[in-house]
Amino acid sequence: MKIIVDFCLIPLGVGTSLSPYIAECQRILEHLGLKHELHAYGTNIEGEWEAVMDAIKRCHVRIHEMGAPRITTTIKLGSRVDQDQSMEDKVNSVESLLNSQQ
Amino acid sequence: MKIIVDFCLIPLGVGTSLSPYIAECQRILEHLGLKHELHAYGTNIEGEWEAVMDAIKRCHVRIHEMGAPRITTTIKLGSRVDQDQSMEDKVNSVESLLNSQQ
Amino acid sequence: MKIIVDFCLIPLGVGTSLSPYIAECQRILEHLGLKHELHAYGTNIEGEWEAVMDAIKRCHVRIHEMGAPRITTTIKLGSRVDQDQSMEDKVNSVESLLNSQQ
Amino acid sequence: MKIIVDFCLIPLGVGTSLSPYIAECQRILEHLGLKHELHAYGTNIEGEWEAVMDAIKRCHVRIHEMGAPRITTTIKLGSRVDQDQSMEDKVNSVESLLNSQQ
Repeated sequence: MKIIVDFCLIPLGVGTSLSPYIAECQRILEHLGLKHELHAYGTNIEGEWEAVMDAIKRCHVRIHEMGAPRITTTIKLGSRVDQDQSMEDKVNSVESLLNSQQ
Repeated sequence: MKIIVDFCLIPLGVGTSLSPYIAECQRILEHLGLKHELHAYGTNIEGEWEAVMDAIKRCHVRIHEMGAPRITTTIKLGSRVDQDQSMEDKVNSVESLLNSQQ
Repeated sequence: MKIIVDFCLIPLGVGTSLSPYIAECQRILEHLGLKHELHAYGTNIEGEWEAVMDAIKRCHVRIHEMGAPRITTTIKLGSRVDQDQSMEDKVNSVESLLNSQQ
Repeated sequence: MKIIVDFCLIPLGVGTSLSPYIAECQRILEHLGLKHELHAYGTNIEGEWEAVMDAIKRCHVRIHEMGAPRITTTIKLGSRVDQDQSMEDKVNSVESLLNSQQ
């Protein structure tokens, strides 16, 4: 089952500068070859269910190893069986509607 | 890795009455023997990472089988390595603070 | 517009013990007379849009005053115009389905 | 209080093609002059608390007017008092770490 995910990991107990932890998650996604896109409040990921969920678990394991005693993660996760849709398709379908009306 | 999760599955393309789908997810969690607690905007689940994530995937598969062409799910997911904490512990630690001040 | 909300506030930069902050948010909701219900990964709130959103803002202001330099909050928010539905209605509609099949 | 928000509105009871509704929300944000950025699973918004929350309420009102009987919205919302940070700052702080290590 292919899914599109919005993944936002927050380490707790490590102060307020979270970018080193977010950067490490990006490296994990990159290393695993998963299609992903960082935005200002999370990272979108596209892939097979097991691959994406395994990657998110690896992020939790690694961020704990980096010293975070506690992590809270928010995930939005979409699956559909009526059509194949990529992350770009989702953005493009909205933007084409906006552009057609200008 | 033990996790506590807030799981909220929304089937799309099936109208506005979602309770039959939510009830089916409860049956899946019950059948798998996972500790879970329904609330007004989701279901809290406590268990090992693989067991919880496998259960959530089974819910997606089953809800698609029931006719939902598209699903969007929101997950909050907490892990910690500094202490063992249950769903009840989380609620109790807040409520004991509230009661001690009355 | 009446809404049902799941509200989860996470203070950052204050260590890993979050219950004093969550308890303070409960006191704010209680003081404002909003219908609310704590669960293991957030608090459900039911009320008019402005009242609920004003309460959530007061929580942010107060938690910053308590010393949290940074806050990340997750909100699920439902509105409907086809019927009036309370938090209890949502849970009951699922549970009655589960009970009718036993 | 300035906030950065990830906003994801899902209309229910209108089938599975959601882009017309998402596009309408983009128009509302644009019309209100709010800084915003569409991504594959939501829209990031940056602004003052009241302005952002008012915009999100207008989106709910408008999407109901367009015929959606029910809406479920997910919001991630960050505030901080230790420093001023924009949406670009958040992305740049992660990307500069990634680039410095290559």
